[in-house]
Amino acid sequence: MTGSYSLLVADLIGVAVFAASGASAAIAKRLDLFGVAFVGFVAALGGGILRDLVIGAVPPLAFADWRYAIGAVLAAVATFWLHPQLNRLRRTVLLLDAAGLGLFTVTGTLKALHAGVPPVGACLVGMLTAIGGGLARDLLTGEIPVVLQRDIYAIVALGGAVAVTVLNWANVADVITLGAAAAAMTGVRLIALRRRWSAPVAVP
Amino acid sequence: MTGSYSLLVADLIGVAVFAASGASAAIAKRLDLFGVAFVGFVAALGGGILRDLVIGAVPPLAFADWRYAIGAVLAAVATFWLHPQLNRLRRTVLLLDAAGLGLFTVTGTLKALHAGVPPVGACLVGMLTAIGGGLARDLLTGEIPVVLQRDIYAIVALGGAVAVTVLNWANVADVITLGAAAAAMTGVRLIALRRRWSAPVAVP
Amino acid sequence: MTGSYSLLVADLIGVAVFAASGASAAIAKRLDLFGVAFVGFVAALGGGILRDLVIGAVPPLAFADWRYAIGAVLAAVATFWLHPQLNRLRRTVLLLDAAGLGLFTVTGTLKALHAGVPPVGACLVGMLTAIGGGLARDLLTGEIPVVLQRDIYAIVALGGAVAVTVLNWANVADVITLGAAAAAMTGVRLIALRRRWSAPVAVP
Repeated sequence: MTGSYSLLVADLIGVAVFAASGASAAIAKRLDLFGVAFVGFVAALGGGILRDLVIGAVPPLAFADWRYAIGAVLAAVATFWLHPQLNRLRRTVLLLDAAGLGLFTVTGTLKALHAGVPPVGACLVGMLTAIGGGLARDLLTGEIPVVLQRDIYAIVALGGAVAVTVLNWANVADVITLGAAAAAMTGVRLIALRRRWSAPVAVP
Repeated sequence: MTGSYSLLVADLIGVAVFAASGASAAIAKRLDLFGVAFVGFVAALGGGILRDLVIGAVPPLAFADWRYAIGAVLAAVATFWLHPQLNRLRRTVLLLDAAGLGLFTVTGTLKALHAGVPPVGACLVGMLTAIGGGLARDLLTGEIPVVLQRDIYAIVALGGAVAVTVLNWANVADVITLGAAAAAMTGVRLIALRRRWSAPVAVP
Repeated sequence: MTGSYSLLVADLIGVAVFAASGASAAIAKRLDLFGVAFVGFVAALGGGILRDLVIGAVPPLAFADWRYAIGAVLAAVATFWLHPQLNRLRRTVLLLDAAGLGLFTVTGTLKALHAGVPPVGACLVGMLTAIGGGLARDLLTGEIPVVLQRDIYAIVALGGAVAVTVLNWANVADVITLGAAAAAMTGVRLIALRRRWSAPVAVP
């Protein structure tokens, strides 16, 4: 009970942070208020919608539970009004984004495993839950997705999804171990940011 | 019976209009005949395909009823041959597009409610039914979706979806009231076009 | 038994070829190793994922059978390391791509028919299975999809899908006739390439 309540709170924090990232990208492209709210919604919930369509959980949670949609739109609209102040909060936003990465990977991977998706597929679904919203945000704002270009981001999600799958297979997936996996992803992501780790690019 | 037949006719008119808008965008980008037909198909039926995937109605109507696909492709191919004349019909196309906006919102919202999607989610599905095709058209032709940038368009759909949800909740959703809701959306959209209403853009 | 095994082998060859095409596009855009693997995955499996969502086969084969995902990623990563040599193999890649076009159209159309999709819809699903991955590859790398712009490619898939639907309706769809349909599509595609056939573009 408490576990599922803290999961909901954690999930909604992830939704708000990803919505703010989508809204910021939309503001930078001079989209109007509706565009900002819409890109925020898609950035926050696009990964989860894709996950739910793939595992056959229809209607997706983003449409079945109003708290997700309203949370995403409120965060996007708040970003619309407050965005000059957000620049001062840049480090906080990066921290929360790293937390969202960990949380969305854990919940996405677990939902796929519980829906009967085999291990390799479940890891991919978990990773897509975490990066799908950012991919859609970049496509809607006319950019090649940043997650494909530089930085260690999706790889952290994939590694975390493998860890969750192993924990689940070993029957030790509980609030403590899954929380540790999410925290480890967040930590690796923050270290990667600080050390400017990036993946190799092919020799032209 | 007559109600469902007039609904089909209204739906196919919306399909044809949206296919013409997709075909026009594809012609402007110098796509070939297949590209014009494909973008027309996606502009006309993309919103409905998304709606049906989200509510679990598979295969989506665009694949289950041949009249939709054939109607969209015929309208797109006709636009390919007739497009210089279409410029003279610009006001007619805008009028039909506004009618399509109202009709697609009504049918999308109702189908979501009947599939058991809760109210907030059903309003979002109704709006996505109306704007999804235009979004996909713009992504396929390399543009940031116009619906996110200016004009009052999606907001009209969202307001209409709320009205349909209230009518359905009050048990007064019939051909008369739903037709009035669609007509009201069309009217507001046309007034917004004439008065050049637009949503606010964030201060940079 | 042997039929389904050779179908799997043929399917995996198609996956590898389309993954190499996606990886090449990603390398040209200077994406990092993860981006190359991801675009390869989407180019190889995006069409099949769309097909499976539309016919309600969840989770899609790309997530349900690990050989597809691993095959796509291995082919993409191999392309990352070997891509300068691939230029010398350009004719081989075009040949394999034409073979993939035929194979994906046959399997996509058949799966749709077996899932109960009516003929017109099944032809569209078969064509989308063959072109969907390339469409997603181009969107992810910021290009207007090449299949919409020039060349005879999707039309070959659509013609082949109609042939498969007729064979199935006449109850003569077996390994021989379907293999002949796939080979015919491959042949027409190669002739279209050599003769530089292309679809008409609208007069501006």
